[in-house]
Amino acid sequence: MKNILILGAGRSSSSLIEYLLKAASEYNYTVTVADTSLESARQKTRNHPHSKAILLDIRDQSETEKEIKQADLVISMLPAFLHPTIATQCVKYKKHMVTASYVSPEMKRLDEEAKKAGIILMNESGLDPGLDHASAMRVIDRIKADGGKLTLFKSYTGGLIAPESDNNPWGYKFTWNPRNVILAGQGTAKYIENSKYAFIPYHRLFTRTEKIYIDSLGYFEGYANRDSLNYRSIYGIDDVQTILRGTLRKPGYCEAWNVFVQLGMTDDSYIIPDSEKLSIREVVESFLPQKRGDTKTKLAEYIGIPMDGDIMAKLEWLGLFEDTRLKINNASPALILQTLLESKWNLTAGDIDMIVMQHQFEYELRGALYKLNSSLVVIGDGFVYTAMAKTVGLPVGIITKLILERKIKLTGVQTPTVKEIYEPLLKELETLGIRFKEREG
Amino acid sequence: MKNILILGAGRSSSSLIEYLLKAASEYNYTVTVADTSLESARQKTRNHPHSKAILLDIRDQSETEKEIKQADLVISMLPAFLHPTIATQCVKYKKHMVTASYVSPEMKRLDEEAKKAGIILMNESGLDPGLDHASAMRVIDRIKADGGKLTLFKSYTGGLIAPESDNNPWGYKFTWNPRNVILAGQGTAKYIENSKYAFIPYHRLFTRTEKIYIDSLGYFEGYANRDSLNYRSIYGIDDVQTILRGTLRKPGYCEAWNVFVQLGMTDDSYIIPDSEKLSIREVVESFLPQKRGDTKTKLAEYIGIPMDGDIMAKLEWLGLFEDTRLKINNASPALILQTLLESKWNLTAGDIDMIVMQHQFEYELRGALYKLNSSLVVIGDGFVYTAMAKTVGLPVGIITKLILERKIKLTGVQTPTVKEIYEPLLKELETLGIRFKEREG
Repeated sequence: MKNILILGAGRSSSSLIEYLLKAASEYNYTVTVADTSLESARQKTRNHPHSKAILLDIRDQSETEKEIKQADLVISMLPAFLHPTIATQCVKYKKHMVTASYVSPEMKRLDEEAKKAGIILMNESGLDPGLDHASAMRVIDRIKADGGKLTLFKSYTGGLIAPESDNNPWGYKFTWNPRNVILAGQGTAKYIENSKYAFIPYHRLFTRTEKIYIDSLGYFEGYANRDSLNYRSIYGIDDVQTILRGTLRKPGYCEAWNVFVQLGMTDDSYIIPDSEKLSIREVVESFLPQKRGDTKTKLAEYIGIPMDGDIMAKLEWLGLFEDTRLKINNASPALILQTLLESKWNLTAGDIDMIVMQHQFEYELRGALYKLNSSLVVIGDGFVYTAMAKTVGLPVGIITKLILERKIKLTGVQTPTVKEIYEPLLKELETLGIRFKEREG
Repeated sequence: MKNILILGAGRSSSSLIEYLLKAASEYNYTVTVADTSLESARQKTRNHPHSKAILLDIRDQSETEKEIKQADLVISMLPAFLHPTIATQCVKYKKHMVTASYVSPEMKRLDEEAKKAGIILMNESGLDPGLDHASAMRVIDRIKADGGKLTLFKSYTGGLIAPESDNNPWGYKFTWNPRNVILAGQGTAKYIENSKYAFIPYHRLFTRTEKIYIDSLGYFEGYANRDSLNYRSIYGIDDVQTILRGTLRKPGYCEAWNVFVQLGMTDDSYIIPDSEKLSIREVVESFLPQKRGDTKTKLAEYIGIPMDGDIMAKLEWLGLFEDTRLKINNASPALILQTLLESKWNLTAGDIDMIVMQHQFEYELRGALYKLNSSLVVIGDGFVYTAMAKTVGLPVGIITKLILERKIKLTGVQTPTVKEIYEPLLKELETLGIRFKEREG
């Protein structure tokens, strides 16, 4: 009997818990789901005979330690800043740990101790980071093994709405944390193109998109993520000539989103005084030069967009020029925008989400240049087992099983960039319908 | 005999020390100038019989305390973050203190103790903050006393090059801290116009300038400072309908500076890898989309400026498209730009600087609307007694004298927004040629 302790029973844990409960009788697991809401934990375990739902506040250190001591492996689906504390206890009690978060410097420092304790601290085991690493490294390692030399790597991911639920002019709804969508891209995008460093400041980011074609879905647009440079060392491709990671949106989204960036409405660094008294139109006015005329006309002139084009249609559909009061106290521009969008981009009954990922490779092999795309499309199974929950939770679940079954024997701080992890992970994911399709040329 | 201790003998202390040494025999002062460079201190005191030049490192607490104990008043021209420590000792030993820096929260907390000790902690006694407060409050208080109601207050200040030394296409040279010029305006400008809050994000700031006319000098352009909102409470004009503080430049500067903002070259938040190997043209290229063509043509297209206009002339004059290597390791874009500009905008022998300030007021009085401008132009007296050194140092010196002569009897944390300070300050400044000129209509 193996005891698995899952900390956190939020939305992103649904597919993970479902997967482990399905495996529980065959592999003899007991799955304990701990949350600050016992109700949430119980909704996920649904009285499954191999499950326990418990109330646990991670701030109660002695209770947390008690639970960790009883487990063979701990999965933390809590916010990332809590992981180092839990990892320290996992090292102390010699328990494996799995998270879907980036390796933090604090986590990295536990590597030696974890190795001494003979346990794995497994991170970046979800979608992004996680599945992106695994699927990219499988191709990169194969090219290397064949004697090829990678010259270009671009990788795009989007958490989007599925075509059957795509019924608004933006081609977008909130299928994940809205705040992250509002603040996406702030800072400077850094990448390498043809062996030259390239930088895009935030206020230019959404004007510099690329077209990405996905079989059966058609065209998307991709904008560059903040830091693509790190991935050279992570993927062992330090001399790659082009490296770019980006985010996918439906065509037309970025040029319309750029209006908010240009106005300054995605800024989260200050509070708009008396924000509760302002209508959304008045908030827009506060970013425009004062002069006579209606808000829409002034905005079109200030930003330099046509009065009757697709961009304006998207803005009007949001009700941006209406005198609707949002009534939020002490709100930043970003929070006001988020509140407006949450009333328009919310999922409604029956809405289905979708994850799209595409890696693009170019490599030299025996004097010739080759191109290869590897693409993934995952459609959600309704409101609970969303594409996002599946692509985050199933890799975490599979890696957990691989560790407990000793298929992964690595110790210390790890990510799924190594063959011992990505090969069995991707293989099992394919049996669950999560499969990358490759296309040459 | 009164002992004045001046901490810091940098460039901005020259006019201050000169002023106090001139007053020394009449008022029986001994002026002690303390600096980490004894040479610097001696250059400023020049063996004046009423002076002492000493070596002092403020980090040596016991030496600093010894000097403070011997003084009647301490002037700190050190970086602002050091003031609270010195102020704490001034309170302990019951010594007055004068600085040209903004009141920090730490300084503010010493108000009660300073009052108990019977001493003044006098801040914001230079140009901006300082002279701006004094000159604005004199007019604001007069309008109030006459029964008027202020409806508009705009105030612009510029540290510029004097017309006789203005011989480059930018109409600008570094007469003060270059780094502050590069980073100027970052964040969001906040002000009030016609009772409505207005916000300008940094990437739009230099496109939204106003024309400002100064008698005998002609037109300038002003861009909004980061926070004008605070000045409502500072000046006691909470219900003013329009309030804006801004920075002055010669016409054409802002539209050309905007090119750097648009590219992202004023960003100080990250390091450009291998910066020492890149030429300035290559740095510009890293901000442009990659395609065939020369850098100048691509930049003109990307930013949307003419190939042969004034903006391009300014950029070419800087050598922005030349393959000059700046050879700075680990440089941010902002540092690279600063290094380029320091080689072009440096002061040369005989260059004269200039301070320009203009307050604009509108007020209602007995049913009628009035307009009033109050403007100051100060031209430097050569390389040492610059306009900047005079307008920062003379107010500090005069206020020091007023405190020691008991003309200012206030205690606690103060700024020159009150009549007891600004009236004698402005009166004596006028005898030294620093005089605001008012113009109605």
